[in-house]
Amino acid sequence: MPAEHAERRARLASAVGAVGADAALITRLVNMRYLTGLESSNAALLLEADGKAVLATDGRYTTAAATAASDLEILQERNVASALATRAAADGVLRLGVEEHDVTLAVAETIRKAAEPAELVYLGHAVEALRVVKSEEELTLVREACAISSRALDELWTAGGLLGRTEKQVARDLENRMYEHGADAVAFETIVASGPHSAVPHHRPTERIIGTGELLKVDCGALYRGYHADCTRTVVIGAEPSEWQREIYDLVAEAQRVGREALSVGIECIAVDRATREVIDAAGYAKQFSHGTGHGVGLEIHEAPTLGYSATGTLADRMSVTVEPGIYLPERGGVRIEDTLVVRDTGGPELLTTTTKDLLVLDA
Amino acid sequence: MPAEHAERRARLASAVGAVGADAALITRLVNMRYLTGLESSNAALLLEADGKAVLATDGRYTTAAATAASDLEILQERNVASALATRAAADGVLRLGVEEHDVTLAVAETIRKAAEPAELVYLGHAVEALRVVKSEEELTLVREACAISSRALDELWTAGGLLGRTEKQVARDLENRMYEHGADAVAFETIVASGPHSAVPHHRPTERIIGTGELLKVDCGALYRGYHADCTRTVVIGAEPSEWQREIYDLVAEAQRVGREALSVGIECIAVDRATREVIDAAGYAKQFSHGTGHGVGLEIHEAPTLGYSATGTLADRMSVTVEPGIYLPERGGVRIEDTLVVRDTGGPELLTTTTKDLLVLDA
Repeated sequence: MPAEHAERRARLASAVGAVGADAALITRLVNMRYLTGLESSNAALLLEADGKAVLATDGRYTTAAATAASDLEILQERNVASALATRAAADGVLRLGVEEHDVTLAVAETIRKAAEPAELVYLGHAVEALRVVKSEEELTLVREACAISSRALDELWTAGGLLGRTEKQVARDLENRMYEHGADAVAFETIVASGPHSAVPHHRPTERIIGTGELLKVDCGALYRGYHADCTRTVVIGAEPSEWQREIYDLVAEAQRVGREALSVGIECIAVDRATREVIDAAGYAKQFSHGTGHGVGLEIHEAPTLGYSATGTLADRMSVTVEPGIYLPERGGVRIEDTLVVRDTGGPELLTTTTKDLLVLDA
Repeated sequence: MPAEHAERRARLASAVGAVGADAALITRLVNMRYLTGLESSNAALLLEADGKAVLATDGRYTTAAATAASDLEILQERNVASALATRAAADGVLRLGVEEHDVTLAVAETIRKAAEPAELVYLGHAVEALRVVKSEEELTLVREACAISSRALDELWTAGGLLGRTEKQVARDLENRMYEHGADAVAFETIVASGPHSAVPHHRPTERIIGTGELLKVDCGALYRGYHADCTRTVVIGAEPSEWQREIYDLVAEAQRVGREALSVGIECIAVDRATREVIDAAGYAKQFSHGTGHGVGLEIHEAPTLGYSATGTLADRMSVTVEPGIYLPERGGVRIEDTLVVRDTGGPELLTTTTKDLLVLDA
């Protein structure tokens, strides 16, 4: 991996020059991790335009830093940002690039003081832009995170016995299964939403008991070596689906299929959203699909690109994204179906969340 | 609770005037929650010096906002900070206080533009300062979070069978017990550290199998209605403790007792640290106690006051804090004993994490 990180830093060094900076001070932890391999709650990276790089972290992480980034100079400091700003000034940096979406006003003051006489310039989302297209090594990790999630869902459906349990109990059960299959953590708080709760897009599990004839919406994902999975399925509990449940399920499934098939190199992100949305709009449920079609997934659960109704940009090979349309009928119930997929330049998108999308009827 | 939140806002309004601002824009989510009762991932509060308050949040949270803060004007906006900055300017605010430790350079630009002609001034940790002393209502929640954690630990020890399981399995087991006892979530990633791993202060659970004659250090806490618990216990597995294990356990237990007993109204925070540290230093383990004695616990797992070797300030009635000395012998093992307690003006500190601190020998 150090070679991959060095290659990422080389690409960033070019971007640093492009914004007119002599060096970049990377403080956003997920970006620092992307460029060094170090997972830490207190670390920063100084990358000079000529490629010279220094990683600063405190005593808790120096051993991990030496292992993850054996090719980097490592500075043991508690105040990592100001230590690296001081170093930048000593190295003759005159224009220090900072991540303005991460650096607070308070931290900016300490950086400014330490970096004198250098002035601060804004790097923008330079690192996030690099992260959009994944390497095959990264995709292996996203794939494993999705495989863990799919296995856990498969098991949950096979085990059954959801009727009569609370949403919280089912959420814990599913999370335990993800851990058993190798998850390092959950990628986000698992959503288990039953009956009317399924109409709330981002419901938090409650003590509500899952009843007969209800929709059950489950949105979950494993975290595996820093990479996230994101998968939603909706099932019916205890009885055959009613007419309205079947209608919105089939519509969402069709919209989701259309969205998946739209994923291709060069397509505008907004066009993917439009493709799913048209199916739902045509059936008269435009207002009941109240969010975007999808988002990138990687070191963060939500990252670029955005596949929404005001999205910009186009898709490229090796982007990992979700496709997740939904229809939500307040007080009645809702359906969302979500996969994580990889955009590929040949052979169509690669589906990572392989658990079935057929409408399952459980505990009937 | 709305009355309590109104009272908190009244106290903040005084602090706003003290820094020379006409209004405060509270963007730090935990502070916004403290002042309104709303739990949200996207919300902000505008509090004018005359006490007028507006809460902004997006469509996902407006219902929750109306319930939590029925006494407030609620603005439905996606970009909450700039919407409230615009409102401040319209209300004639000329000096808008912002939380400089929360607002990024990028967000500051949008606030500045929206707030024109107002200038931004720094509020500092004005809200955090209010949060240090808890109300009895808050302490009820911290107490319950600690009770859940204690029950889960009691059960884990009683159930036994830790020998031969992995650190990760034990961590999951303990977390499940906290959920069963009513935790909304875990307060932080549970630490289960066995054998040599127990010498790492902030170890993350691995697949390492817990063996005979090893120290097992468990640091855990429940989250309950926003409030955190923090509790560490160390036990011996499978065999009577060896001489060195007993020695460092007794030392840490004694240091921890001295630290607890030092908690009183008016004592300097640094003196609490000194009290525990002296016990450990006197026995020759100064360098093996590599962190501070404790910290505040409340809406955050780590908050003011700090009970460390460079701490400032003094303790007051109704502060909830941890006392957690440790001795860590690299490659061999370590002991930490941690309680969460409330400083009281009469009758000594109130112990919230009531599970035993006797040295337990399990699976022997």
